[in-house]
Amino acid sequence: MAGGRKASILHLLFFFLLFSSSALSAKRTLRSRQPCKNLVLYFHDIIYNGRNSANATAAIVGAPVWANRTILAGLNHFGDVVVFDDPITLDNNLNSDPVGRAQGIYIYDNKEIFNAWLAFTFVLNSTDYKGTINFVGADPLMNKTRDISVVGGTGDFFMARGIATLMTDAFEGEVYFRLRTEIKLYECY
Amino acid sequence: MAGGRKASILHLLFFFLLFSSSALSAKRTLRSRQPCKNLVLYFHDIIYNGRNSANATAAIVGAPVWANRTILAGLNHFGDVVVFDDPITLDNNLNSDPVGRAQGIYIYDNKEIFNAWLAFTFVLNSTDYKGTINFVGADPLMNKTRDISVVGGTGDFFMARGIATLMTDAFEGEVYFRLRTEIKLYECY
Amino acid sequence: MAGGRKASILHLLFFFLLFSSSALSAKRTLRSRQPCKNLVLYFHDIIYNGRNSANATAAIVGAPVWANRTILAGLNHFGDVVVFDDPITLDNNLNSDPVGRAQGIYIYDNKEIFNAWLAFTFVLNSTDYKGTINFVGADPLMNKTRDISVVGGTGDFFMARGIATLMTDAFEGEVYFRLRTEIKLYECY
Repeated sequence: MAGGRKASILHLLFFFLLFSSSALSAKRTLRSRQPCKNLVLYFHDIIYNGRNSANATAAIVGAPVWANRTILAGLNHFGDVVVFDDPITLDNNLNSDPVGRAQGIYIYDNKEIFNAWLAFTFVLNSTDYKGTINFVGADPLMNKTRDISVVGGTGDFFMARGIATLMTDAFEGEVYFRLRTEIKLYECY
Repeated sequence: MAGGRKASILHLLFFFLLFSSSALSAKRTLRSRQPCKNLVLYFHDIIYNGRNSANATAAIVGAPVWANRTILAGLNHFGDVVVFDDPITLDNNLNSDPVGRAQGIYIYDNKEIFNAWLAFTFVLNSTDYKGTINFVGADPLMNKTRDISVVGGTGDFFMARGIATLMTDAFEGEVYFRLRTEIKLYECY
Repeated sequence: MAGGRKASILHLLFFFLLFSSSALSAKRTLRSRQPCKNLVLYFHDIIYNGRNSANATAAIVGAPVWANRTILAGLNHFGDVVVFDDPITLDNNLNSDPVGRAQGIYIYDNKEIFNAWLAFTFVLNSTDYKGTINFVGADPLMNKTRDISVVGGTGDFFMARGIATLMTDAFEGEVYFRLRTEIKLYECY
């Protein structure tokens, strides 16, 4: 009788351990401040300026009434809206084989200093990764690093969430910039 | 004494079971690759082309300097920015009673092939569902299906996350398209 | 022997309690309908109208072909795209010390009634809060309150998710509006 009760406690306990671990195992890492996935990628933006249509990967598509869409506006480009489709590489070389494309929109939203806001997707298609990562966030360009949100993902990045740390790796005139993007996922499935 | 200890183990165990289940029950489904909610909806986009202002549900609001805002641009519409407020229906019939509106923005972001990027909200208001679902993602139109992220929701879709699979269900000239949207939520509250 | 087994049950149980609580403690609040963080902020939008460039915090940067970018369009401003960089205050006074900036984009997306769609970031930099909060959602202006999604955050709002309830607190002509924003986070780290 006593043995039967001890056995049933054990059964309950093991049943519960089994249930709990299976419930939690669907998500690979528990919520913590340790990333469950970490990757560093670079993307390269060449903005159309009236003379580079063969190479340009981005174009001004909106601007305030006082500006035009050929050249970035005065007042720190305030109000310029840019659509981009930029190559992504594993290193900081524009000529490296691209592993995907960064596609979306950025705007300049401040009159006093250079300040941007971004919403875009990494469409990755390499031997290492196939899938997409979606980003939204403010990009105060004058800071050395800026954090934006990873709001979702698909494919190899199914349901991902996290933070991406942006760093301007190169900035050449008003035609080319390169962003180092360190992606730290804190929710992986 | 032995019975007392066994009883206290049981008490601890049941207390823990109780605590655990109440802690987890706030979220209806645990994290897994099985959707906790699944729905299929269609939305219908009629883009303004200079001659259809009565029927149009979308309009070009941004374009590169080489294009205009009446007609979709060359180079696979690269740089066109479209604002839309499209009816959502339960089936693929434009004339069915709408159950809500798809509202937001899409852009064409590629010069070589048709490729779009989307950020929008389903505002649902039917007998079945009241609430909103927010989406962000890349939309490579030439693929049969494309996955984007469900990044949040309100009302009946409070705090939802998941994936939406888009499929072009109809495409008529450059005026009308219909997207089948299969929404798979993996986080439900 | 029986005592040994009882002891091992106790060990298992306590080990499991310890494991479970440490696994869950990385996230401050469990998923529930009780917010883990709640704050109320106001932001102030002064749209450029051709005569207020010194004070304006927002500008029309996209519009349909039938409209211009100086004055909000007819048909309930359908198709207007606005970039903004608005001061955020703790109370409803435009002249209070700002605690941050609301930066992003809004569009008017409906021909029949005033209806907007928003994607933006709160960049907070005060003694109380340093960090960003990212928002996406539909904003049916004619409703007294509207819920949008908090899709992510950084800094003090690391990985935040939740709902923001918007309320038009003031609306003066077509130049100034003030939005009360109640932010309710349901996922905090």
